[in-house]
Amino acid sequence: MKLDYFFKPLGVAVVGASNDQEKIGRQVLDNIINSGYRGQIYPINLEEKKIAGLLAFSSLDKIPTKKFSSVLVVIAIPAKFVVAEIEKCGRLGIKNIIIISSGFKEIGADGLIREQEVLALADKYHLNILGPNCLGFINNVSRLNASFGSTGSASGRIALLSQSGAIGSAVSDWLKGRNLNLGYFISLGNKMVLDENDFLPYLAADKNTEAIIIYLEDIKDGQKFMELVSRISAKKPVIVLKAGMSERGSEIAKSHTGALAGGSAAVKAGLERSGAVIAESLEDLFGILLLLQAKATRNGVSNSLQILTNAGGLAVLSADEVSRQGLVLSDSHDIYGDADAIRYEESLSKLLKQPSLDSILVLLTPQTSTEPLKTAEAIVKLSKKYPKRLILVSFLGGEAVQKAVELMFESDLPIFDYPEQALRAIKKLSGWKVINKELTPFKKSTATPKSTSLDYLSLFKLLKQYRIPVVKTIRYGSNDPISYPVVLKAVGPDFLHKTDKKAVILNLKNRLELEKAAAGVYRSNKRIMQNEQNYLIVQPQITDSLEIILGFKRDRSFGPILLIGLGGIYAEIFKEFKLTVADLNQKKANELISSLPFYPILAGARGKKKYNIEQLVDVLISFSRLAAEHPEIAEFDINPLFIKEKESLAGDVRAII
Amino acid sequence: MKLDYFFKPLGVAVVGASNDQEKIGRQVLDNIINSGYRGQIYPINLEEKKIAGLLAFSSLDKIPTKKFSSVLVVIAIPAKFVVAEIEKCGRLGIKNIIIISSGFKEIGADGLIREQEVLALADKYHLNILGPNCLGFINNVSRLNASFGSTGSASGRIALLSQSGAIGSAVSDWLKGRNLNLGYFISLGNKMVLDENDFLPYLAADKNTEAIIIYLEDIKDGQKFMELVSRISAKKPVIVLKAGMSERGSEIAKSHTGALAGGSAAVKAGLERSGAVIAESLEDLFGILLLLQAKATRNGVSNSLQILTNAGGLAVLSADEVSRQGLVLSDSHDIYGDADAIRYEESLSKLLKQPSLDSILVLLTPQTSTEPLKTAEAIVKLSKKYPKRLILVSFLGGEAVQKAVELMFESDLPIFDYPEQALRAIKKLSGWKVINKELTPFKKSTATPKSTSLDYLSLFKLLKQYRIPVVKTIRYGSNDPISYPVVLKAVGPDFLHKTDKKAVILNLKNRLELEKAAAGVYRSNKRIMQNEQNYLIVQPQITDSLEIILGFKRDRSFGPILLIGLGGIYAEIFKEFKLTVADLNQKKANELISSLPFYPILAGARGKKKYNIEQLVDVLISFSRLAAEHPEIAEFDINPLFIKEKESLAGDVRAII
Repeated sequence: MKLDYFFKPLGVAVVGASNDQEKIGRQVLDNIINSGYRGQIYPINLEEKKIAGLLAFSSLDKIPTKKFSSVLVVIAIPAKFVVAEIEKCGRLGIKNIIIISSGFKEIGADGLIREQEVLALADKYHLNILGPNCLGFINNVSRLNASFGSTGSASGRIALLSQSGAIGSAVSDWLKGRNLNLGYFISLGNKMVLDENDFLPYLAADKNTEAIIIYLEDIKDGQKFMELVSRISAKKPVIVLKAGMSERGSEIAKSHTGALAGGSAAVKAGLERSGAVIAESLEDLFGILLLLQAKATRNGVSNSLQILTNAGGLAVLSADEVSRQGLVLSDSHDIYGDADAIRYEESLSKLLKQPSLDSILVLLTPQTSTEPLKTAEAIVKLSKKYPKRLILVSFLGGEAVQKAVELMFESDLPIFDYPEQALRAIKKLSGWKVINKELTPFKKSTATPKSTSLDYLSLFKLLKQYRIPVVKTIRYGSNDPISYPVVLKAVGPDFLHKTDKKAVILNLKNRLELEKAAAGVYRSNKRIMQNEQNYLIVQPQITDSLEIILGFKRDRSFGPILLIGLGGIYAEIFKEFKLTVADLNQKKANELISSLPFYPILAGARGKKKYNIEQLVDVLISFSRLAAEHPEIAEFDINPLFIKEKESLAGDVRAII
Repeated sequence: MKLDYFFKPLGVAVVGASNDQEKIGRQVLDNIINSGYRGQIYPINLEEKKIAGLLAFSSLDKIPTKKFSSVLVVIAIPAKFVVAEIEKCGRLGIKNIIIISSGFKEIGADGLIREQEVLALADKYHLNILGPNCLGFINNVSRLNASFGSTGSASGRIALLSQSGAIGSAVSDWLKGRNLNLGYFISLGNKMVLDENDFLPYLAADKNTEAIIIYLEDIKDGQKFMELVSRISAKKPVIVLKAGMSERGSEIAKSHTGALAGGSAAVKAGLERSGAVIAESLEDLFGILLLLQAKATRNGVSNSLQILTNAGGLAVLSADEVSRQGLVLSDSHDIYGDADAIRYEESLSKLLKQPSLDSILVLLTPQTSTEPLKTAEAIVKLSKKYPKRLILVSFLGGEAVQKAVELMFESDLPIFDYPEQALRAIKKLSGWKVINKELTPFKKSTATPKSTSLDYLSLFKLLKQYRIPVVKTIRYGSNDPISYPVVLKAVGPDFLHKTDKKAVILNLKNRLELEKAAAGVYRSNKRIMQNEQNYLIVQPQITDSLEIILGFKRDRSFGPILLIGLGGIYAEIFKEFKLTVADLNQKKANELISSLPFYPILAGARGKKKYNIEQLVDVLISFSRLAAEHPEIAEFDINPLFIKEKESLAGDVRAII
């Protein structure tokens, strides 16, 4: 999908332009004119001849262009008229459209039908449509504000994609007061045709854009999203604020935009895999935006920092936050309560001359000899002299520091309300720097469904095909040799919850005990056992092993998500599961294992026995390959996976197609 | 300690008052005069006759008063002259003194000596001394600003105690812009004589004070602090920001004020026990202060709330934070992006008419039809009409909402930068409401040290005295009967880390095996075993039990802190320890047990066996009584405490005096 004519059209037509200043179409037209757009502007109105000093046209087919494909059409008319306009666009060869109008799927059944009609036309004519139910977009880079409700600004280095027009407006309004400007603001609305995945490649390639901010309520194609973001993240930070991560939040999100939020655990795993910087809240997002204001962040953000302060207490509180965030405080300089601007300047200057790569957080509280304004001037001056050093500032207080803070807003310095906010932002972006270096691009799986049987022994066979060791498992009554003690299990579609039906009998010491146990199971499950799909299997009793759970669940959007955690009773108690996107390689499998809370046990804590981690890595990689290559399997659990000193092997399996 | 003449003296003398405007003594004098203080003011200066229009005196003994005990003396002269002045105060019968001067223990050895000299005089003459190295205090209630560096303000309902003058100044400056005034600001400085514990009773009794804010870097007498705060918390919230809770932070705190921060785990347990509202950061503290601005918080803060918003996205993000904070979102009202002031007013009015006790969070983003200023006016009007309802506000954005926000600053409404900040503040104060109802006052222990032997069998005897069941334990070689299999252990001062010396031999099935094992231990520890304090004991092997660790460690400041957690290998892996002040009663022991991460195991998760929780409660209470009654024991660990179905019993002990 080429978006060049979308963002830089040779002409823009506004369907719904009007001489009534209150109409949205008119506001869009005014924004286009006022933004300094240099192409042709075509107001479309059935009756008016002139609008806002421009010649108006009664219909899109009347506009004087030889190349409809180079024209962007903005539609701001009641929803019921939109379908006809889209049909007209299609016939004329217009490709790029913004539907500002609301009244689509967000209003329920009627709107959904209308949206589907538009979607069918979009498919038929290959249309790029932004919206419906959106604010449009602002391109400050090539000066085109094709939106309503938000004025443009000077061009900046940040692109903002927002699924909520209101959040987008709030963010862009907030940025204005802070010398922080957007290059692009794109209001995604209902994401009927174009969504985040369509804009990401454009913004990735755009040289003006140094960071991409995305507010999302749902992610329809998580795999594509990971594929794109994992590549972009190597070059520029992609910051994502995903709303609806809690149950209650996702409930409200559904009723709000009709967004079908995926399982939030899967979304979280997917965002982590993508290498995005994950903002947890608006506050987080604003903090990151402030930090991005500093041009020095282009070179990455170090996770170690120094503090310069006139208040020891602030240094202590900041050190506490440094520790909470897992950052490194390489040095803390208390220049005492009577520090004036000169002492600040001299001390900061000395720090900036150090060859180190630390960020520097300058803190100030207003005390008797404090000169907030002069100190601010000195900091601004030094930040210009050392453009590659990352200086962050937080002046605590109210009236006494207000002018100083406002002065610094005019510069590129990131000014934070509280030191804690600065430190959290450093943490977030320093994480990106690491990812930047080491992230493997995600590749969306293209495997086709196979006909996999859910039969118990077949699943064991499937695992063996992937070279995942399994506990020797024979059908009861077969002549395969097995060594006692053994476990007897009833398996099959009616025994999915084996323990409930007392269909697992442990520790059978000889043939006699085994036969007695089998007879017992047959007796108490007479009806069920008549179904041939239910049968008995025998396994050697495994002792002296660590039991874990290894499974995956396929998310509609992000694909198979791997789960690994402690098994047995501790599984339910500690709920210490790790979830991760199932595309493990050697490196990622190793990282996953080291991040497990019970890793010390695997590695042989306190001189206890050590487990074969290398082989476990192989099992994880194979299992994640199985997940990728079998899209027909919705869920697959190995529970327990017995971890023994020499190898890990599957003890029991369960799958859902 | 009576502080009436301290806060409301009949006269104030300023030692170090001067006609030099730059001198701190002069600034203090000006502050006293400007604050509208109605008592006598005595500038003290060796040479000057008149200062700031007031008659000056060459020495404290020259001031015309008949009651030196009613005079407050503020000392702002170089440190080296301070001792002589204090001596003079003592002789004259002056009791109430502020030492503003720095140059005491915070500068190292020389200062420490000077501080000890002053302290000796304070003891001799029973002096109330605030400082040294402090800003003084501001009493806005009876209009006396006896501080330097901070101007007073209208009187408010909040008292601020701060161990850092700089943090105190920043907070009080920040408050000024927000119609939030302090009743008292007390800068604690080095806390040589008066510390937080001395001021708390005064502020608790003061009717004007509705909430107490404390910034601390150390708490010298944690037990007294708990005793006071656990009582005050029943009536007014005490909000504590304790700096230096991380290792790095506490290191910096030490070098900053010479504060010897207690173990931060003990401080945390102590603050929790005290019922204080614990602010984790400055940001947290400011959020709580904002919320306290609403008079409706007097009636307590509910943990359930409703949201009113013109942006669905904000509702979703807020619901996410509600869920993170464990609050209850009882309803969320999206009045849509085109909501004007009238729609806000009507909707809010409807919500306020509901009889419910929910807090209401009003959110707004600037969109096309939004009227921020008029909406703000409507909210202010309604908040006055419903003074008992707690309304919180967050207008997102910058320029577009600035005037509206400023308008609301003039009211009692708490205005937050982000919805998340409002929700965190609700969480903090709603916790206080609960405590308010149910907190048992803490009582400082007055037990005297006993002569407790650390001998292994004596410790078992001590436990038995407290009716804590122990595993049968006999001396090897004695004739007491014991049933096999048994465990053989070498105990005594040289076997504190038994496993290292291979001095625990498990699962000895008969007398022969036991004797062989004992011989082995003697052989490999020949030298050590010659010490009579080292000997061998025999215990029956305990199987089929859950192993936990129960211990206490005595904190210098907060007294014995109880630790309970999972034993065995899981102890080290999950580090799921709970720490609590060791003054358990039935209720608190039950709460502690239910809060344990492995509580589901104790309670019989998934139809597994249930343990005797009632008896475990008794064990915990007895053990905490032992801790209180034996102040000579610094540390005591029962590890493992075997939890069996019928009872819990101590398997091994270790103590340090």
